[in-house]
Amino acid sequence: MTIDKSHDLFRFELEATDGAARVGTFYTPHGPIHTPCFAPVGTQATVKTVTPHELEELGAELILANTYHLYLRPGAELIARMGGLHKFMSWDHPILTDSGGFQVFSLAHMRQVDDDGVTFRSHIDGSEHRFTPELAMHIQELLGADIIMALDECTDPKDRAYNEMALRRTHAWAERCKAAQQRQDQALFGIVQGGIFPDLRAESARFLAALDFPGYAIGGLSVGETKAEMYATLDALMPLMPADRPRYLMGVGTPEDILESVARGVDLFDCVLPTRVARNGGLLTRHGRINLRNTRFAEDPSPIEPGCTCYTCQHFSRAYLRHLFKAGEVLALRLATIHNLHFMLRLMEEIRFHIRAGTFPQFKEEFLATYSLPNQTIRHAQMERRRAARGWDNRGQG
Amino acid sequence: MTIDKSHDLFRFELEATDGAARVGTFYTPHGPIHTPCFAPVGTQATVKTVTPHELEELGAELILANTYHLYLRPGAELIARMGGLHKFMSWDHPILTDSGGFQVFSLAHMRQVDDDGVTFRSHIDGSEHRFTPELAMHIQELLGADIIMALDECTDPKDRAYNEMALRRTHAWAERCKAAQQRQDQALFGIVQGGIFPDLRAESARFLAALDFPGYAIGGLSVGETKAEMYATLDALMPLMPADRPRYLMGVGTPEDILESVARGVDLFDCVLPTRVARNGGLLTRHGRINLRNTRFAEDPSPIEPGCTCYTCQHFSRAYLRHLFKAGEVLALRLATIHNLHFMLRLMEEIRFHIRAGTFPQFKEEFLATYSLPNQTIRHAQMERRRAARGWDNRGQG
Repeated sequence: MTIDKSHDLFRFELEATDGAARVGTFYTPHGPIHTPCFAPVGTQATVKTVTPHELEELGAELILANTYHLYLRPGAELIARMGGLHKFMSWDHPILTDSGGFQVFSLAHMRQVDDDGVTFRSHIDGSEHRFTPELAMHIQELLGADIIMALDECTDPKDRAYNEMALRRTHAWAERCKAAQQRQDQALFGIVQGGIFPDLRAESARFLAALDFPGYAIGGLSVGETKAEMYATLDALMPLMPADRPRYLMGVGTPEDILESVARGVDLFDCVLPTRVARNGGLLTRHGRINLRNTRFAEDPSPIEPGCTCYTCQHFSRAYLRHLFKAGEVLALRLATIHNLHFMLRLMEEIRFHIRAGTFPQFKEEFLATYSLPNQTIRHAQMERRRAARGWDNRGQG
Repeated sequence: MTIDKSHDLFRFELEATDGAARVGTFYTPHGPIHTPCFAPVGTQATVKTVTPHELEELGAELILANTYHLYLRPGAELIARMGGLHKFMSWDHPILTDSGGFQVFSLAHMRQVDDDGVTFRSHIDGSEHRFTPELAMHIQELLGADIIMALDECTDPKDRAYNEMALRRTHAWAERCKAAQQRQDQALFGIVQGGIFPDLRAESARFLAALDFPGYAIGGLSVGETKAEMYATLDALMPLMPADRPRYLMGVGTPEDILESVARGVDLFDCVLPTRVARNGGLLTRHGRINLRNTRFAEDPSPIEPGCTCYTCQHFSRAYLRHLFKAGEVLALRLATIHNLHFMLRLMEEIRFHIRAGTFPQFKEEFLATYSLPNQTIRHAQMERRRAARGWDNRGQG
């Protein structure tokens, strides 16, 4: 059934549901996106360590690039002169750019927000810059992604007073972004904010729905609140999100967060998790995450995950991969990235299959039963510490 | 014409000559090697940044791995238990291992040489180790490469007294290596030493030829002597090397050194140059080396080398590659490595073509006329300094 054909270039066809979970297709100028979809993160116009050709072979349909990083280096004007982001990075499929807001609020230095915009200093060289809704749109139009984001103010999700104030600004900025949009070949998404407060989320969903965006993002989750708070916020919010538009949960997430969010009606995801943990030796398997730096893998002749069909598992043992990590070989980062992206993209494929088959709840339950959550949280913290100590370039998001 | 069938597994068929330059095929248990051949260096059981699949696609037939590095980490016994080096690194084509001698004499700490062997401390953890000819053979038999090297003593090529003394040891060790060899599916090469002294080189060639190795290496060149000294040494030595066996010039080299050495009858080469300079932004072109970090490439939409058919040149601009290098993205290292290996392997293909066609001298002259030597030497020194300052893992050889 086609729910909405009003946006010709960006129509969203909802094809099947299983409870609140949905399967659909979002059409863009660079091809269709089959939802629920996971977008690998290519912060600096590259999904770290892999080529566009490998991403195609892995079945990635959509990638994310970060406006903040590309604006600072090499510059959006330069990318526009080189023919736009697709041509620059040789990726002829859909791209999504964020507005730069999240990075301004999390990476940049000495930021000052006012109703008109936000002034900040570059994390690279300390130079001063200013983003306004109009400039965030202009930069994203120079980059030329298929899906672009309104500028929003990112908050501590638990601070009520701050969220009330920031929400007014985010809504005003959404209106200004819509008014500033000039290119018609880009889908501008509004971003629902409101922290963990159901009434603010509801207000935001209503306000943005009235502006009739071709898609809606959910911002400000998975940024410090508990899992229970995140899921409760989605429980309250999702029924209020327009059903005929794609719903994009920004910066999420882990396999378990994706399953829980799909169950609540989310269609699009992006997250640095699979690529970032890969570069720390963290490999995703159906039985949770393992770290290949561990001594117990030193003479393990089996692949990362027996039965996995990715290039890495088809050709290399855990023992060899551990050797590459211990020896500091960059090939390790890449082989691990390939496996983790394969894992996430196959997971999305299975999710779509089970929603169509009406077996998504059972699939989700079975997956979560074997994917051991507590261990993983501990390992994640350990890996983040090791990563910081090791100093491979991790300043980006991907 | 088949010159020698006495070594069944390792016969060398000489197929064409042009002056002293020769085209042939060296047969190994893992496939034929078409000579003149350039072997990419995979120090730690990986040609840095690229997969075995990519090496195959690039047309690499032989790769080198370093016994010293693999002995220290992950250990030759471990690799043997994992099925040997070919299986461990998923490379089902010919491999050559050196004896470890060169690294002991260049990388290891506090080495002490005596007639029986050499004691040294690991550059990784300072632990003490000892190589003897017998142990160098044992380690290489555990690794299981197709071509293995006798242990030799590496010298300052200009020190006459040291070379006289070391040569006696190198010859005695060559005899002991031959006696210690147990596996018959590995070709053990003797290594001709003697510095820049024609009489010592002649003595070494005669001594080793009498031991009837299936192939001969030339050690101790391109390690500090001038180009003129290196070429003069080859001029004196090459006519004395057995014509019916492959001749391997270790650690060489630059495109111009390879052309000059092929012209004097060398068949096999290995060198870290194309892979190491790639990781510094140094790209090989028919008009010399360029460095992509240079500002003049910031908005250059052309590929590294117009007309080049490598994956990198087919998909990416100099502007994009420069962006990746400036942003510290590891994909930069890999895309540059692919181009440089493609450049070297296509050069070897052209060399073989022109020897068969009888046009090698003209090809060499034309190539060298456009490949600007003086600039390059200066750039090389600059890049080596920058590399040292930047601190990507360069402790290996590859």
